[in-house]
Amino acid sequence: MILGGGVEERPLPTFEEIRLRTPGGKVPTALAAFARDDARERALHTYGRGFPDLVRGFSGDFLAAPDFVLFPRDEDDVTLAMKVCEDEGIALVPFGGGTSVVGGVEHAPDARRRATLDLGLLSGVHEIDRASLAARIGAGMRGPAIDAALGEHGLTLRHFPQSYEHSTLGGWIATRAGGHFATLYTHIDDLVESVRMITPRGPLETRRLPASGAGPSPERFVLGSEGTMGIITEAWMRVRPVPSHRASASVCFPSWDDAVASVRELAQSGLYPTNARLLDAREALIHEVATDGSCVLLLGFESHDHALEPWMSRALAITAERGGVVSSGPTYVAAGARTHEVDRASAEAAWRQAFFDAPYLQSALVAMGLVVDTFETACTWSAFPTLHAAVVRAVKTALKEACGGGLVSCRFTHVYPDGPAPYYTFMGAGRPGEQIRQWSLVKQAACGALIEHGATITHHHAVGRVHREGWHRERPPLFGKVLEAAKRELDPAGILNPGVLL
Amino acid sequence: MILGGGVEERPLPTFEEIRLRTPGGKVPTALAAFARDDARERALHTYGRGFPDLVRGFSGDFLAAPDFVLFPRDEDDVTLAMKVCEDEGIALVPFGGGTSVVGGVEHAPDARRRATLDLGLLSGVHEIDRASLAARIGAGMRGPAIDAALGEHGLTLRHFPQSYEHSTLGGWIATRAGGHFATLYTHIDDLVESVRMITPRGPLETRRLPASGAGPSPERFVLGSEGTMGIITEAWMRVRPVPSHRASASVCFPSWDDAVASVRELAQSGLYPTNARLLDAREALIHEVATDGSCVLLLGFESHDHALEPWMSRALAITAERGGVVSSGPTYVAAGARTHEVDRASAEAAWRQAFFDAPYLQSALVAMGLVVDTFETACTWSAFPTLHAAVVRAVKTALKEACGGGLVSCRFTHVYPDGPAPYYTFMGAGRPGEQIRQWSLVKQAACGALIEHGATITHHHAVGRVHREGWHRERPPLFGKVLEAAKRELDPAGILNPGVLL
Repeated sequence: MILGGGVEERPLPTFEEIRLRTPGGKVPTALAAFARDDARERALHTYGRGFPDLVRGFSGDFLAAPDFVLFPRDEDDVTLAMKVCEDEGIALVPFGGGTSVVGGVEHAPDARRRATLDLGLLSGVHEIDRASLAARIGAGMRGPAIDAALGEHGLTLRHFPQSYEHSTLGGWIATRAGGHFATLYTHIDDLVESVRMITPRGPLETRRLPASGAGPSPERFVLGSEGTMGIITEAWMRVRPVPSHRASASVCFPSWDDAVASVRELAQSGLYPTNARLLDAREALIHEVATDGSCVLLLGFESHDHALEPWMSRALAITAERGGVVSSGPTYVAAGARTHEVDRASAEAAWRQAFFDAPYLQSALVAMGLVVDTFETACTWSAFPTLHAAVVRAVKTALKEACGGGLVSCRFTHVYPDGPAPYYTFMGAGRPGEQIRQWSLVKQAACGALIEHGATITHHHAVGRVHREGWHRERPPLFGKVLEAAKRELDPAGILNPGVLL
Repeated sequence: MILGGGVEERPLPTFEEIRLRTPGGKVPTALAAFARDDARERALHTYGRGFPDLVRGFSGDFLAAPDFVLFPRDEDDVTLAMKVCEDEGIALVPFGGGTSVVGGVEHAPDARRRATLDLGLLSGVHEIDRASLAARIGAGMRGPAIDAALGEHGLTLRHFPQSYEHSTLGGWIATRAGGHFATLYTHIDDLVESVRMITPRGPLETRRLPASGAGPSPERFVLGSEGTMGIITEAWMRVRPVPSHRASASVCFPSWDDAVASVRELAQSGLYPTNARLLDAREALIHEVATDGSCVLLLGFESHDHALEPWMSRALAITAERGGVVSSGPTYVAAGARTHEVDRASAEAAWRQAFFDAPYLQSALVAMGLVVDTFETACTWSAFPTLHAAVVRAVKTALKEACGGGLVSCRFTHVYPDGPAPYYTFMGAGRPGEQIRQWSLVKQAACGALIEHGATITHHHAVGRVHREGWHRERPPLFGKVLEAAKRELDPAGILNPGVLL
């Protein structure tokens, strides 16, 4: 009853029961060689993994489905798809792993003819530059496949978004995905050495450079463009040797404010921990890392080069100054041990497993009729206390109104010298047929609080359709004009992912 | 005679002897309150500090002078200046410290009416956010003034381009200046939390955020725009506590290839040294840090948080693996000592002084009739050996042709996991009246070699006019179209810094 109502599991529809949109047109002959228009592929490419996607999917509603799905075998197919779609006025939505939680792979309601382009076949680690620690990777390749291929060379990308198992390199780049590292290299942005994107006006490929000061950065224009300017086909990525040294520890704080201040000092220390996840008391309980009402800081360092005792010792000394008590570790693992095989009993390991399990858990909870979702942001340290209070208040009020009550919890996933990236989870009881409306009320309250209090609409979940209004309030209006001008230049017919971002 | 000819000091022109362009028009009445059109201000705002600027200046040629110079007292003056210049078709060039070495503050030869806008009065540290380690600073403020104001609060920006004493915050942001740190936070880009720019279509101000994943980054569009899209008036900058711990050492390598490999390993180690300048044998000799033909690595760490022995020890162990021999240090300085007051006898201190003196030395050498300049780039580690050989060959050949001979030397100013930023100095004997033509021949040979071998036209000297052709070859052509579309949107009359960048 803490969620404002009861919970019961509901039956999923059979494949025969799902409802697909009547196609707005046939597959153009020129694209037939790499197109599929069967119900299964259309359904699989209808939605991402956002809350409204799950609810609609579980209810059999696939009315946003594309007319057909393209599986380009190479860049020529991508170019051809763009040309034909432009000529015939077909909206074209690029699709990587389909894990968008912001409506980023869903067609616009008013799109008459609709093609979705699945990048899955543009996969593979094509080239490795060992001296420069870089690899040329196909945009359609998924996280585990990338690391398996790199692993054969003792290398890894070390980019683990929560969607890691399903999402793709191209999707990460298009949406500025957040990854593994809590302090440096937090976004895929920092790992992109060069990128290649096919636009309706031709290819746009940036030069492989470790850094440059020549004009505005072309990579940064592609990063976050969310399929509206072109389709990313491959990138040279910065990779690194598989870490041989790991240090981990958990630190409990009785007080949230002290914990926040301590993590701030850590973020400003120049120690650059790999992991510095701060869970509030509720998150610590949910993730089973503390049951006594403490906040818990999960702290980790990793290196392929050096032992980490000095780093961890100093970090723990910083946390002790604010009353942090080490509750697990410090554990040091050296050479030979692989990341996922060590230290499974620790709080960090419990959290790691919970982290990757969370999207599956959400699906199960949605199937049980709950209204449950997460959202994340970033703000300055000075803005955080007011923002946090406002967000919690807005979400609780909205949950009360929408669900009769509910829970909200917070963790920091990433921290910077000038501010944290807080990540919120909310949960309430749903009513059959009303879940999306209920969710929308809470989500809008959350977005409103973020924008009003100076935070970003998203730290690493992208804009898509869901965050579009918030982003339009966040971004400088003239920068919106600049992006629209760029869009007219690269995609004058406006076929690419209409309604997303812009 | 190693420079291909003799050297003698030449007399400088008196102020009365200099030749200024006849103004293309008068100061518009609406701008009179903050305009100056006396010969002195016009001359002082004619050029930057590039080689052709020095040569023309020393010969009394100020024929590129603006008609008048504006000294806006606030943003309203900047807005008014833009409106009047747009209405009357006057080219408007923003001017910070006037230290551009790429023609970035010089008017286009075909500009009929010309105003230069000096940001000097838009100065001051307006606000400090201690918790977030950020400060709001006026764009016209110079390096030493910024650090003096921040220093009163125990803070510092730690951004020391070679032009530090004269250049301004706005200039750094507009040109993506390179700074103090060799490995992380190498460019001003990383220190900008938010930025405010006045365009002919109004202000563009980004939100204060430690990070975001929402759409393409608006800051990254402003960074490197070189006064062509708008005029930067202020920015929230990431600052840090004044370092209390410093570690420094010099390491000699008999072999350049071993030194390069060692610095690569260091750049890939995750130790992130503050300083990792590698000087080739010639640079080591010129800067008086080694006279035995060794290459020298100047290594430094700094922190306000922790003692640095573990970092330095591991770094020296890495260099020892490739035959590096510690020639000075390691020296550790703890709490209380200020950066510029310690360790002045070391190789690092000798280099530091030489670093800040170099632009003055260049001026003196140009006055003596030499052809002397520097250029810098960045490339992948795998591309470096071929690039380096090609650059040295091209510059030596050009020096032979242009000057009858000369010198070229190399150092790394910044290093990244995927590549170094090599910085070259060249020098030859000039002939009176022919210096610019001689220089141009060598400079073009250098630029050509950089672009042909996959490097960037500039790591931190910006594009301006001098690197424009190279940048147009480096950047993706479609990205050029995007910038032109942005320019039409923000500066439709094309009054802002015409001929630079675009």
